[in-house]
Amino acid sequence: MNKFPNNIFGIVQDDLVAVEKALYSTIQSPVDLVNDIGGHLVQAGGKRLRPALYLLCARGGKPPDQEELLPMAVALELIHMATLVHDDVIDNASIRRGRPTANARWGNHSSVLTGDYLWAKAFSVIASGAKRNMLKILTDIIASMCEGEIVQLREAFNPDQDEADYRLRVAQKTANFIAASCELGALSGGLNDSDVVQVREYGYAIGMAFQITDDILDVTASAEQLGKPVGNDLRQGIVTLPTIYALKTSPFRDELRRIVIKQDMSDEDVRRGLTILRETDAIEYSYRQVDSYLQHGRNSLPTTLNATVRDALLSVADFVGMRNF
Amino acid sequence: MNKFPNNIFGIVQDDLVAVEKALYSTIQSPVDLVNDIGGHLVQAGGKRLRPALYLLCARGGKPPDQEELLPMAVALELIHMATLVHDDVIDNASIRRGRPTANARWGNHSSVLTGDYLWAKAFSVIASGAKRNMLKILTDIIASMCEGEIVQLREAFNPDQDEADYRLRVAQKTANFIAASCELGALSGGLNDSDVVQVREYGYAIGMAFQITDDILDVTASAEQLGKPVGNDLRQGIVTLPTIYALKTSPFRDELRRIVIKQDMSDEDVRRGLTILRETDAIEYSYRQVDSYLQHGRNSLPTTLNATVRDALLSVADFVGMRNF
Repeated sequence: MNKFPNNIFGIVQDDLVAVEKALYSTIQSPVDLVNDIGGHLVQAGGKRLRPALYLLCARGGKPPDQEELLPMAVALELIHMATLVHDDVIDNASIRRGRPTANARWGNHSSVLTGDYLWAKAFSVIASGAKRNMLKILTDIIASMCEGEIVQLREAFNPDQDEADYRLRVAQKTANFIAASCELGALSGGLNDSDVVQVREYGYAIGMAFQITDDILDVTASAEQLGKPVGNDLRQGIVTLPTIYALKTSPFRDELRRIVIKQDMSDEDVRRGLTILRETDAIEYSYRQVDSYLQHGRNSLPTTLNATVRDALLSVADFVGMRNF
Repeated sequence: MNKFPNNIFGIVQDDLVAVEKALYSTIQSPVDLVNDIGGHLVQAGGKRLRPALYLLCARGGKPPDQEELLPMAVALELIHMATLVHDDVIDNASIRRGRPTANARWGNHSSVLTGDYLWAKAFSVIASGAKRNMLKILTDIIASMCEGEIVQLREAFNPDQDEADYRLRVAQKTANFIAASCELGALSGGLNDSDVVQVREYGYAIGMAFQITDDILDVTASAEQLGKPVGNDLRQGIVTLPTIYALKTSPFRDELRRIVIKQDMSDEDVRRGLTILRETDAIEYSYRQVDSYLQHGRNSLPTTLNATVRDALLSVADFVGMRNF
């Protein structure tokens, strides 16, 4: 299971079908290899969360025609795809969403270039139509995502990170981008300034909850559910909320610390680390954070939004809290 | 020696000083590592050819104030820097311009992310000011550069490439970007449509000549002149014009072919390959191509350009034909 229930996005279903079609046509290239890798990435699917939130937020107000509305939705997903393909190179990931990654199949070098190609295509799609303030929001977010990833890389295998470090990193890596997707939608929908801020806050909270859930699932889910190996974060030295909590509270915290700093963790190290994590109440603690963000997100939604859209956005919050993939 | 003679760019010298300053301030990040890598890249210098040509072409007409003119010049150099840092990752290059590459110093992963950061900053700089048609020109060029690099990767160690393949690849990798730099300048300078086309053609020809010269120097120059090892292209399986010519004409072409296809070339293989190349008239042949492009470039310059600018652009053409770095 890899998608949000269709009914949540019912109000933008037509838009999402059009986004899917546009994604395929946008990545068309005279170079076969680019088509192959791009096609692989589009087919790999994913939740299309960013375009869906953008479209929902736009349709919460009075959006322009679909033709004018869509390019930004397509660009958001292309940018997300570009970050994924580069992340997989950086993480040496071989599996994502249950399928071989682009780097596993075509090599790191083609993957770096395909990511760059997707960046360019993303901006190409919106270059002719997007308003300037919207372009600026988008480029600032991308720069911030790169900074977040670089910090994550620098702080890998460092057990002395605290929750504030973690939150900042998650904001930069994930939440700010989802916040921007909502904000851009709200701007497209012509919401008033204070509603735009509120919708952005909703997106930020959803994004934080989404990433913390991801980080929890990396500890608790099965490889089958994840579509990738369990304990990936631990193995790569990415210190997430459950780990930070367990490093403070576990009776085996010294042992966990010795595992976290190991740059060449064995499978047994990872198994033992996960066991230590699971024996604390790190997971419950982390889920409480998720719930708190989701509640904040729900509370942030302006009452002036179209009621059907508002319900859908509330359902998204419910669903992020329940997902197990 | 690593720069064009200052006098060539005299008319845009003030602009270039401002570009340099803007490059430093644009890459400022709250993340130290990003500053370090970005600072390293800016300090590494380079010819600033793309901003210089953009500025010259703009000042060939009636450009806007410097404040409005500069962002695109900065963006062009940032995009160039992003491609260099990713190229060095892809080529596993350890030296560029006589200094360690970012990937050699900070690792591939930080380098991939820093490249992405530079993409984002490039678009950020122009998001608020650039005209839409100019943004579109830029994004299309970047997509095409990525395609060119991917084709180069796919065709590595393939001795059955002909000159048409080579020209297309050089156009995509280098010449189209330099052409676009000139075209964007011409548009900023408000030149008429046909002059814009002519200026673009000049840039294309200069770009082709520039890259072919690069490819020649990889065979003929000293490591000291190049600021990187000699025979790099051959070693990496990049089949350039001199090699294509020698594979057709050398009495030792079968031996050269056996070297070109080797994915693990020894130093001795590279030396022998270069010797075979140098013993043909591949270098003379390639320089004739350079001269032909440069002549075409000179002929393409519109007579309506500001005379001082036109002279400078003619000098650029002369200099590309003479450079030995």
